[in-house]
Amino acid sequence: MSTQIVLYDIPSAHPHNAWTPNTLKTRYALNYKGLQYTTEWVEYPDIESVSKDIGAAPTGNKPDGRPHYTLPAIRDLSTGAVISDSTKIAAYLDRTYPDTPRLMPARGFGLFCAFGDAVYPLLDPLFPGAYFRRTREESYGMPLEALAPTGEAGAAAWQKLRDNFGKMDEWFRAGGEDGPGVYMMGDAVCYADMWLAAYVLWVKLLLPEKWENMKTWHGGRWATLLENLEKYETVV
Amino acid sequence: MSTQIVLYDIPSAHPHNAWTPNTLKTRYALNYKGLQYTTEWVEYPDIESVSKDIGAAPTGNKPDGRPHYTLPAIRDLSTGAVISDSTKIAAYLDRTYPDTPRLMPARGFGLFCAFGDAVYPLLDPLFPGAYFRRTREESYGMPLEALAPTGEAGAAAWQKLRDNFGKMDEWFRAGGEDGPGVYMMGDAVCYADMWLAAYVLWVKLLLPEKWENMKTWHGGRWATLLENLEKYETVV
Repeated sequence: MSTQIVLYDIPSAHPHNAWTPNTLKTRYALNYKGLQYTTEWVEYPDIESVSKDIGAAPTGNKPDGRPHYTLPAIRDLSTGAVISDSTKIAAYLDRTYPDTPRLMPARGFGLFCAFGDAVYPLLDPLFPGAYFRRTREESYGMPLEALAPTGEAGAAAWQKLRDNFGKMDEWFRAGGEDGPGVYMMGDAVCYADMWLAAYVLWVKLLLPEKWENMKTWHGGRWATLLENLEKYETVV
Repeated sequence: MSTQIVLYDIPSAHPHNAWTPNTLKTRYALNYKGLQYTTEWVEYPDIESVSKDIGAAPTGNKPDGRPHYTLPAIRDLSTGAVISDSTKIAAYLDRTYPDTPRLMPARGFGLFCAFGDAVYPLLDPLFPGAYFRRTREESYGMPLEALAPTGEAGAAAWQKLRDNFGKMDEWFRAGGEDGPGVYMMGDAVCYADMWLAAYVLWVKLLLPEKWENMKTWHGGRWATLLENLEKYETVV
């Protein structure tokens, strides 16, 4: 395959270079599709200038109205396309590479945008205020793990996060359709699974002591999800 | 078709007996599938006792922990099943009547639950506090239209609602995949379209002066959606 895609990601000292779950989503997607790509590592303060250089669209506005640039972004050398926003990237990859495994059902873009919007508030105990900042389209401007609450507040937040994941656990059960599913849409992994797995992987890599607890939640659903997607974690 | 389903709905003096968008969702679904059904009208104060009588599961808990019952519910006389919660009803109808038009893609239940959770906060300008009440699993306990803000606050809320519908308008555009779609998932209507249309229809029926404005939004997308679904509005 002559396809060559450049993934723009943010480096860190953490395992897998993990910094934000958002770029992990795109990495899962590229690996799952088996598309050839390379990574261009962009330090956090350089995101805006690099995005402008490659012609990536801003994904929102800062509070003062100026455009706000985020990663992941991809540049597809075979088509010239430059796409930012992980859900838009997933939709682009599905329509541009129809012979690779699909991330979403046909025309699933709107539903998968809604999926993300529904999950962000459920992650709030993990990144307090991050959802609010996101909806205000401000930048985090700091490593996400610095937001994770500690001490007594941390214990309460962790319990709340478990309850919230319990809600998502019900989504996997498909309303009783055919028993507990491993993936959101049945036998095949879809972008919603990768989307969630990116946060679970982030916890495993950056908050390993929390992961010891989380991996036991909901019959081990989240640990099983990560195991099943492990072959798509590769960082190239 | 010998199928006979009873839909439990809440009566009102409004056109179409419309009281809550939630039962309109199920009505769209039953009509779209062409299933034979009758309506059992349940006055608001009787919801709990009727639900218990027919064996409908509560859909949440009240703040004091007691079970909370809501409509719609359906009773399927051909299978004996009693289902509450409109999204669970939609999933039940898809799996029980596989020869009728699908409301969701296979195993779409989780995504459609997430869709609802993502949209509720966007409806907050229309029903201020209703989403909060819902997440607290309290009952509205009053006609929803009584919540709609009026005067200057109403004008600001209406503008905010328009912005929020603008966000959903983007979901329909499928990330640029194949231009603006009439339905969320392309050429065929799906439960997400009915879900949204139920709120739009509710505005049209109960706040007709607001509808005059709303029907012009986003290139007439919401008016077109209602027109396309009008044949599934029938109240039987």
